[in-house]
Amino acid sequence: MNVSIIKYIIGYVLVSEGAFMALPCILALIYRESDGWSFVMAGLLCLFLGFLLLRKKPKNRFFYVREGFVTVALSWIVLSIMGSVPFITTGAIPNPIDALFETVSGFTTTGASILTDVEALSKSVMFWRSFTHWIGGMGVLVLLLSLLHIKGNGSLINLMRAESPGPSVSKLAPTIRSTAKILYVIYVCMTLLEIVLLLLGKMPLFDALTISFGTAGTGGFGIKNDSMASYSSYLQIVVTIFMILFGVNFNAYFLILRKKFKQAFSIEEVRYYFLIILVSIAVISLVIQDMYGSFGEAVKHAAFQVGSIITTTGYASTDFNLWPEVPRTILVLLMFVGACAGSTGGGIKVSRLLILVKTIRKELHILIHPRSMKKLKMDGHPLEHEVVRSTNVFLIAYVLIFAFSVLLVGFDGHDLVTNFTGVAATLNNIGPGLELVGPTQNFSVFSGGAKLVLTFDMLAGRLELFPLLLLFVPDTWKKF
Amino acid sequence: MNVSIIKYIIGYVLVSEGAFMALPCILALIYRESDGWSFVMAGLLCLFLGFLLLRKKPKNRFFYVREGFVTVALSWIVLSIMGSVPFITTGAIPNPIDALFETVSGFTTTGASILTDVEALSKSVMFWRSFTHWIGGMGVLVLLLSLLHIKGNGSLINLMRAESPGPSVSKLAPTIRSTAKILYVIYVCMTLLEIVLLLLGKMPLFDALTISFGTAGTGGFGIKNDSMASYSSYLQIVVTIFMILFGVNFNAYFLILRKKFKQAFSIEEVRYYFLIILVSIAVISLVIQDMYGSFGEAVKHAAFQVGSIITTTGYASTDFNLWPEVPRTILVLLMFVGACAGSTGGGIKVSRLLILVKTIRKELHILIHPRSMKKLKMDGHPLEHEVVRSTNVFLIAYVLIFAFSVLLVGFDGHDLVTNFTGVAATLNNIGPGLELVGPTQNFSVFSGGAKLVLTFDMLAGRLELFPLLLLFVPDTWKKF
Repeated sequence: MNVSIIKYIIGYVLVSEGAFMALPCILALIYRESDGWSFVMAGLLCLFLGFLLLRKKPKNRFFYVREGFVTVALSWIVLSIMGSVPFITTGAIPNPIDALFETVSGFTTTGASILTDVEALSKSVMFWRSFTHWIGGMGVLVLLLSLLHIKGNGSLINLMRAESPGPSVSKLAPTIRSTAKILYVIYVCMTLLEIVLLLLGKMPLFDALTISFGTAGTGGFGIKNDSMASYSSYLQIVVTIFMILFGVNFNAYFLILRKKFKQAFSIEEVRYYFLIILVSIAVISLVIQDMYGSFGEAVKHAAFQVGSIITTTGYASTDFNLWPEVPRTILVLLMFVGACAGSTGGGIKVSRLLILVKTIRKELHILIHPRSMKKLKMDGHPLEHEVVRSTNVFLIAYVLIFAFSVLLVGFDGHDLVTNFTGVAATLNNIGPGLELVGPTQNFSVFSGGAKLVLTFDMLAGRLELFPLLLLFVPDTWKKF
Repeated sequence: MNVSIIKYIIGYVLVSEGAFMALPCILALIYRESDGWSFVMAGLLCLFLGFLLLRKKPKNRFFYVREGFVTVALSWIVLSIMGSVPFITTGAIPNPIDALFETVSGFTTTGASILTDVEALSKSVMFWRSFTHWIGGMGVLVLLLSLLHIKGNGSLINLMRAESPGPSVSKLAPTIRSTAKILYVIYVCMTLLEIVLLLLGKMPLFDALTISFGTAGTGGFGIKNDSMASYSSYLQIVVTIFMILFGVNFNAYFLILRKKFKQAFSIEEVRYYFLIILVSIAVISLVIQDMYGSFGEAVKHAAFQVGSIITTTGYASTDFNLWPEVPRTILVLLMFVGACAGSTGGGIKVSRLLILVKTIRKELHILIHPRSMKKLKMDGHPLEHEVVRSTNVFLIAYVLIFAFSVLLVGFDGHDLVTNFTGVAATLNNIGPGLELVGPTQNFSVFSGGAKLVLTFDMLAGRLELFPLLLLFVPDTWKKF
């Protein structure tokens, strides 16, 4: 294990986090909030620890898969621990476990909260809370890769692979650095566009910023106790559209930028993503139309909730826990589907589901034609065996972690739907579940132990299981 | 597709079913019940249709995988349809969909019932209902294979493979016929032993027969409205032990018969099966001991329910729906675990779970040692790639069918726990679930459409998904 390069990169992560904390400091200055001092102190602490780690440059810069996975897992843990410091020191969330839960929920873009009264927070704390979504959405290591000149280009793909969602990472440009840069440029531009459109709908600047961070990262922390219910229809529609757009595979945007429209619109995953969204909205609208004045109103709420859940954002424009069973079940299933690979969304991902469905079809084909050598295809190209295998393994690990988490959380004694959807909402990085963790409720009902399990699930979900699992294997830490 | 051999074998299945129906006829004679006539008519109908199909002998007796799977799927459907006739004609279950549900539940050894008052049934109908469990437990095609001299030994393994539970079928003896015979001899002897032990506990003969059929097939149809709660502790303990014994891989018994004790007790699957049972009993007993007078009483109930659920039998000695959340969650998880491969139990099977866990461990190993060529092992031998692959594919199909079923059943508007555990209880061939389908409730709450979905799930679960899925692929029916 190349420990020195891991330490070195974590150093950079800490320095970046310190720099990020300058933003809530500025906000505290503007709004004259004393909470600013907590961010100054926490930021300086990050910078100090970061530079400490950066002092010793690693000799060997080669990165194997193992180092990549461990670096990403540890970076996210360090990021979360340091990010929770201001929550504790400002007194917003005095309990360290709660603060860690909230911060992990932020960075992993889950949006599950233990706070019962969000509106009581100071502006700077509220800003930091939402900003963690934006940082976590595209990923802090991807950001570092886009900024730094780290040598060893070929091996760095392992870092990006561990942090980026989906079964495979496509290099958009010849180098990792330019790929990472392209992703961040698209990310920043789309966020800015949403902010502008929200401002045009007369949303206050602070709200527009925080809501956009939550949308861009598909996070879901709201700044109002009723999430998005009190905003105008125009604002809700803008947010609906952007939630869905941030759930699209960013490769599509890259192709559109390159004016390869036909190629962009023929990505199988993206087509099925929109198909699933449209069918879900249609079915839900038909079922819930009696609950809302008009069919149009029903479609608006259905679209908002479907967009929010499939992209794993987690905003709510209405209390969908009160919907009939079919819409509720559809939403629960969408929790697992998740967004596209290569987006900022969580969940199993549409592309993985496509691969899984294709695997079943191939199995049936083999049963009928035992000597067939047909290969699985995606977007017209044969799928690498490696991708199919890792997708299968992902599903196995996913199911096992899920079952084990539901069991552990069960010790709190809440009902099965709360436990089941609570785990679903955290492992898929969504935010709200049903019943006690429904959209108008929050995760404060769980005990400390259950919160730690759910915190693990959020990190495991965001980093797609294996980086985090690897930390628990003794072999990982051996030298050889 | 070799249609003529499929018709031919279905002919044999019908003749066997006609012969089986002689038993309830005899019972009707003894108890002087007019319901006997319904069985006479139904039995004669089976024989007539069977001999009609047997008239034309197939020229080509070769069996490919496809023919094996289709034969098994169709045989089970025909078996269930004809088996439901007496329920309808006796007036015990006048609605054909309900009668089909009950019969499929019987043959697939699920034990889920739509009857609200079991005790109102005539003895002959009750006997037939429980006897379907015994027929379905080891499988009707395995019985045919043990009795008939069907040529084409090498290809007949495809028939057995499609009907026997588990990721792989081991030939115990050099020929399929003798393997099938060994299995049935063990099955019959163990059933007889249970009947004797129950009689020794002063259980009436009729009860001892029907309860033993339900235990042997891991079915679970009771003959009392309160399932097993009103029987003495001795009788409950005997049933507990036999439920657990019928969930063991029959290979172990074969090895014991051959006096290869060491080999029998070193089967990994069997060891983990007992480990899971012991741990579950221990945890549940600790949690529920306050609900029952003594710790011993708690252990008795915990053992009964754990044995009943993990083997997918479905008898209940107490209403476990009223237990706290942890025992309930453990039981739900055990529903998915299921019994051993090569037993009469359903579920995912312990061996499949072992393979899945080992797959995860191998993946982590590869991440650490990318050039490792380590192979998965079971019982000390390397696992065939084919077995690992089919296990992965099984999990995928299982998860997808599960999710889709929960969605479809959701249209009835019941709560999520009812729908979720209702599908779990049928797809895993258990019987009772939680809430509205809890042990003191039954499946009559569901609509006709939902019952058909659950009927499909029971058949899919018993035949391990693919034989039934294959029927829906148009290519299956093409000639080439």
